[in-house]
Amino acid sequence: MTDHLIIVAGGTGSRMGTDLPKQFLEINHKPILVHTLERFYSFDSSLNIIVVLHPDFVDYWIDLKRTLQLDIPHQVVAGGKERFFSVQNGLNAIQAETGVVGIHDAVRPLVSKRTFETSYHQARINGNAIPVLPLNDSLRTVEDGQNKIADRSKFRLVQTPQCFEISLLRKAFEQAYHPTFTDDASVVEALGVHLNLVEGNRENIKITTPEDLQMAQAYFTLTKEI
Amino acid sequence: MTDHLIIVAGGTGSRMGTDLPKQFLEINHKPILVHTLERFYSFDSSLNIIVVLHPDFVDYWIDLKRTLQLDIPHQVVAGGKERFFSVQNGLNAIQAETGVVGIHDAVRPLVSKRTFETSYHQARINGNAIPVLPLNDSLRTVEDGQNKIADRSKFRLVQTPQCFEISLLRKAFEQAYHPTFTDDASVVEALGVHLNLVEGNRENIKITTPEDLQMAQAYFTLTKEI
Repeated sequence: MTDHLIIVAGGTGSRMGTDLPKQFLEINHKPILVHTLERFYSFDSSLNIIVVLHPDFVDYWIDLKRTLQLDIPHQVVAGGKERFFSVQNGLNAIQAETGVVGIHDAVRPLVSKRTFETSYHQARINGNAIPVLPLNDSLRTVEDGQNKIADRSKFRLVQTPQCFEISLLRKAFEQAYHPTFTDDASVVEALGVHLNLVEGNRENIKITTPEDLQMAQAYFTLTKEI
Repeated sequence: MTDHLIIVAGGTGSRMGTDLPKQFLEINHKPILVHTLERFYSFDSSLNIIVVLHPDFVDYWIDLKRTLQLDIPHQVVAGGKERFFSVQNGLNAIQAETGVVGIHDAVRPLVSKRTFETSYHQARINGNAIPVLPLNDSLRTVEDGQNKIADRSKFRLVQTPQCFEISLLRKAFEQAYHPTFTDDASVVEALGVHLNLVEGNRENIKITTPEDLQMAQAYFTLTKEI
């Protein structure tokens, strides 16, 4: 049975018009989005891959992948105003009635094979799987100018790919959009479905700041040397 | 005015007797604790440094630093059963009545000069400063087998060095130990003092797992190349 992967790359750059969106920044002379695609393709070359991009960057990507002679088959879909609508558009591009759909942040090129396999496998068995990690750091809550300690043992950091059996995901994305839908798990959770947490991998960071980019760069450099 | 630094390296290894505690694991042929010491010493060579170690590893460290011919002046103090008692012992080794005391995890060798300067500077002005970062990842709460989304914008990841004016810190550590004292900030918070949050740095990770060690290794390798 073919499984599916929606890679969400909705960013438009932090300083509109001047900066490239993070998914197109380069690590070792290759855009982050290409690293992410190559990684999943190496895990399972039969994946049905959909890349969702901000409408302003669809042509940019089509040109770029031609220039790079990228030979990983995938559909390109224009995203919406919120992540919810981007995933919805990606989901609409899938024709199949069966299989697991993983939804992955384009800017997480360091997902491990173990995280990939565990997430898809558990979603196949239990309907869904969300990769998470415990916190190494202490945690504080901040609200109204006050802050206080929180019990970090009661929290998990959430990664991607978040994986769902396709019929469950379709049902979830038929709901009307709500501002509390901050990630894909929260959309499925709104159906009242229990989410299955599985173990992610620490280096699967979301590249958000220049410091994150440098961390990822370092990791790629090292793993290439090993 | 001389400032102070208590480096807490209380670990005894995850599999007692077989593994070395994390602070003695090597990155580029040098123990993590040495990286941490060298970094702070390069920031401010006048710091009054106290290294707190588990009693079982005091002699090990004294031998090791002799072998490595480490020439960074510091006192070595035996720790207690909980972090609270280790910091208390470190604090008792400081004679001075003035200055800021930073308390730092030995296994955070990647603290930046900016984090160091901001934390000490703010503590000098406001009595205390805690370096924190917003979360890149979504956050879920887990309790009694259930999990649900949390609003990550209301949380901060807490790093070290946590910095305090010495008289405030002494007052805090005169309190009786309480199990909710999970980090140094929480001890000072118990006095009813407002904690000042300052910006940490993303690569200032706490090396807790083999994956963290590999991330830190990668970062050191890259920054050496640059």
